[in-house]
Amino acid sequence: MENPVPAFDRIQCPALHSKIMSAQQAAELIPEGANVGMSGFTGSGAPKAVPLALAERIERLYAQGKNFKIDLWTGASTAPEIDGALAKVNGIHTRLPYQSDPIGRKRINEGSIQYIDMHLSHVAQYVWFGFFGKLDVAVIEVAGILPDGRLIPSTSVGNNKTWLDLADLVILEVNEYQPLALAGMHDIYYGTQVPPNRVPIPLLHPQDRIGEQYLRCDPNKVIAVVPTNKSDRSSAFKPADAASQQIAGHLIEFFKHEVKLGRLPKNLLPLQSGVGNIANAVLAGLNDGPFEQLTAYTEVLQDGMLHMLRSGKLVHASATALSLSPEGEREFVDHIDFYRDKIVLRPQEMSNHPELIRRLGVIAMNAMIEADIYGNVNSTHVYGSSIMNGIGGSGDFARNAYLSIFMANATAKGGELSCIVPAVSHVDHTEHDVQILVTERGLADLRGLSPKERAQAIIGHCAAPDYQPLLQDYFDRALHGSVGKHTPMLLDEALSWHARASRTGSMKPAQAGQAPQAAQADQATEPA
Amino acid sequence: MENPVPAFDRIQCPALHSKIMSAQQAAELIPEGANVGMSGFTGSGAPKAVPLALAERIERLYAQGKNFKIDLWTGASTAPEIDGALAKVNGIHTRLPYQSDPIGRKRINEGSIQYIDMHLSHVAQYVWFGFFGKLDVAVIEVAGILPDGRLIPSTSVGNNKTWLDLADLVILEVNEYQPLALAGMHDIYYGTQVPPNRVPIPLLHPQDRIGEQYLRCDPNKVIAVVPTNKSDRSSAFKPADAASQQIAGHLIEFFKHEVKLGRLPKNLLPLQSGVGNIANAVLAGLNDGPFEQLTAYTEVLQDGMLHMLRSGKLVHASATALSLSPEGEREFVDHIDFYRDKIVLRPQEMSNHPELIRRLGVIAMNAMIEADIYGNVNSTHVYGSSIMNGIGGSGDFARNAYLSIFMANATAKGGELSCIVPAVSHVDHTEHDVQILVTERGLADLRGLSPKERAQAIIGHCAAPDYQPLLQDYFDRALHGSVGKHTPMLLDEALSWHARASRTGSMKPAQAGQAPQAAQADQATEPA
Repeated sequence: MENPVPAFDRIQCPALHSKIMSAQQAAELIPEGANVGMSGFTGSGAPKAVPLALAERIERLYAQGKNFKIDLWTGASTAPEIDGALAKVNGIHTRLPYQSDPIGRKRINEGSIQYIDMHLSHVAQYVWFGFFGKLDVAVIEVAGILPDGRLIPSTSVGNNKTWLDLADLVILEVNEYQPLALAGMHDIYYGTQVPPNRVPIPLLHPQDRIGEQYLRCDPNKVIAVVPTNKSDRSSAFKPADAASQQIAGHLIEFFKHEVKLGRLPKNLLPLQSGVGNIANAVLAGLNDGPFEQLTAYTEVLQDGMLHMLRSGKLVHASATALSLSPEGEREFVDHIDFYRDKIVLRPQEMSNHPELIRRLGVIAMNAMIEADIYGNVNSTHVYGSSIMNGIGGSGDFARNAYLSIFMANATAKGGELSCIVPAVSHVDHTEHDVQILVTERGLADLRGLSPKERAQAIIGHCAAPDYQPLLQDYFDRALHGSVGKHTPMLLDEALSWHARASRTGSMKPAQAGQAPQAAQADQATEPA
Repeated sequence: MENPVPAFDRIQCPALHSKIMSAQQAAELIPEGANVGMSGFTGSGAPKAVPLALAERIERLYAQGKNFKIDLWTGASTAPEIDGALAKVNGIHTRLPYQSDPIGRKRINEGSIQYIDMHLSHVAQYVWFGFFGKLDVAVIEVAGILPDGRLIPSTSVGNNKTWLDLADLVILEVNEYQPLALAGMHDIYYGTQVPPNRVPIPLLHPQDRIGEQYLRCDPNKVIAVVPTNKSDRSSAFKPADAASQQIAGHLIEFFKHEVKLGRLPKNLLPLQSGVGNIANAVLAGLNDGPFEQLTAYTEVLQDGMLHMLRSGKLVHASATALSLSPEGEREFVDHIDFYRDKIVLRPQEMSNHPELIRRLGVIAMNAMIEADIYGNVNSTHVYGSSIMNGIGGSGDFARNAYLSIFMANATAKGGELSCIVPAVSHVDHTEHDVQILVTERGLADLRGLSPKERAQAIIGHCAAPDYQPLLQDYFDRALHGSVGKHTPMLLDEALSWHARASRTGSMKPAQAGQAPQAAQADQATEPA
């Protein structure tokens, strides 16, 4: 961790100069048992020094036989300096609303972190409602501090507005690495209220600006200002593999079909897309595809959308965070004046708001771990019990979308696991919320289908050939042996594929001479 | 079916006089294979003559060896004259979005009706989007027709606006039985659009009127006007039983606690409540309770809310339908001038709109079939495969509510079934959407709890004493034997309680000498 000379030009509020200190000093100010709200969304804009210093402090305290844990609230996932470091030293009691760190995941799945996996749109309001208790400390990365104490936001907004509004104490990290030219890209809406005083949110188009450029912050609450100079966690951009390209191809054919039938405008509707291999392929496919003047209303702006803005296919993008590869980051920083009026970064309350997603008619495209033959989707759990990451914003988007699309490879672990199963081992999106399923095998359009019709569409279009006869056999027997024939289910068998895989490593029926192999949740495929 | 002399004073549009005909004549105008949108929500405002005449026609056609089925779309549940009669003659191919008729249920569960169980807020927009194809015929009950062809709505609004806007052909039933004084109670919002042209819905309070009193209808589309004179299907009002009163008691204590902590205003927030025994008890409890100046933003206005309006505890109620007992109906009709400015009846798009439910901060109180120890809720299926009724609006309300509450008796079938189970056999509301569970045993507040903490709260507070040790034993063993310890689950055992009950009639472990008793879906307890 570099710790440069305090950069006074980024800290323009004179009242805060006396609060400039090291990360170690700031970390000492966080009380044991505190509820701590940190910035960060997909690693972007997360504090980089104080959490690490806090982890070091916790490690020292444990070595002295003392206990020290915090409850950690964020926007979404963060970086190894937060979730990794704090989980490693066992410094987290309760974690919400989302995390994707491997050490954090291990702690959760061994049972030592209490993890609350939430819809991202619910977080800020539940804290405002007082449902999780008082927020003690906010630790927020910013790009700069204005003379009056307002903050130039960093590369993500997440829940920062709420943390700054509600925390008793505020610690700011001023990250010189983040371009000051970010100023002007953010749109912080200050019109939220608690019921019964809420009013309509005046946003009509993805590019609308309805708030302020800067985050408000009461300088009297600021107890520490820590200068840093470090890049966001970023992942290398992987070119799409063949299966992802096939998924993208099916989706683009589907969009063409919908436009032809008049069920989608020629420029589609605002796109929401997650991160990962499949999402990259879909965006690359759209970048090469026939649709022009596209817009995005989404959580994260990843390389694929940057490419589309560059090419002109995408004219506007609204998100709550950037999530760029090192190359994407360079492209963004080098051409920030080109991108500034095409990108709006908002609080996640707004990017994920049911009111806005439904009004705009977003096309929601999310990855999944598995779906069952009736269209229930599991986004979070392996073998029903181990968390992968979390539901994130997928529920906010799927439930309120114009089109709710879920995507996965048809198999995982080299074909040993089918992503289409008799019954999912955990439900995050119910049959009522899932319209389109896509694998590299094909696309199942579930709109207007009953459960039995859905089963035939999913088995026929999405399942891998190895599993198609097994699924059809299950369905046929369920059709006869089930108590009811509305959603045929064999209660003794519905979860048997997962049970088998947890013992043998494969969902395929045992064959003579096959050695069982114990399952590890960590071996499972991470959703794209 | 009474078929009185045409009542010209209710049919004031001269152009439609020539369209007055019998139900039998009108039923002849519905084509085979048509998509038919009918009025009706909990039996209120459903057409009473044409569907019955259509069923008679279908029966005759089948007797002649001819096939005749329609796809039937409604607001929600209807009456025996629709779902019962048409299901009995096997006249329904696809049914959406909700039904509760016993004959309809039997047909669905034997597999002969394709049933699409939907969020009620999704219905109108999916039809506008073209996802279900063209609407051929609308059959709508009204209280009267104005000179210019506009319609005085009946006792429910449901999807009538959408059906009238989109259907090629319209059949009107003018029901003289419905009081003409209904005029003025409805608020039909005509500001809806299809994306990308949607704008904020300008509703800020449950009592706000943002639309028109009457339904628009193009007289040129009207092919038949059928006079009727018949009351809505109504159910007797049952006084609350002891268990329901205990559930109500727990809830009211909880509300008091939340007000004391400042997490709810003194007059609470707009109430949403289903129908049935538990809902009646809760409303009766609120009527006797300490809260004043209450409001309701809900789907149906049942006797309990009428009593609360009468007593002054409730000052305003917004719904999409009345759902009254015969006594409630008399009270309502006799004092309609008292009730008119206190009740607003809206399209179900508005009563169930995520934007409005979230803005208003509704307190959502819904019945369930069962919940599991992690807070997943099953509202629809028995033994995972047989539909009871449907999800209705519970998802619209639960997901977007200020407080999301689900209620059930701790056991069903005389104690043979536990309503708290290791894993629900079908998920309608995921762990992410369920905050409060209540049974007569107590209330579990799941806010801010991890899955394992939720399990202890639910087992400890909600489960029946007979099942508590069994659930605790499952949970303890899962905590050790599960692949992951985040949401401990024994894949071989999670659905075993349902499997056992489907064979023996009881979730309790087999005891020596106990004779197995095959399960019938119909035997299961209907959600309150």
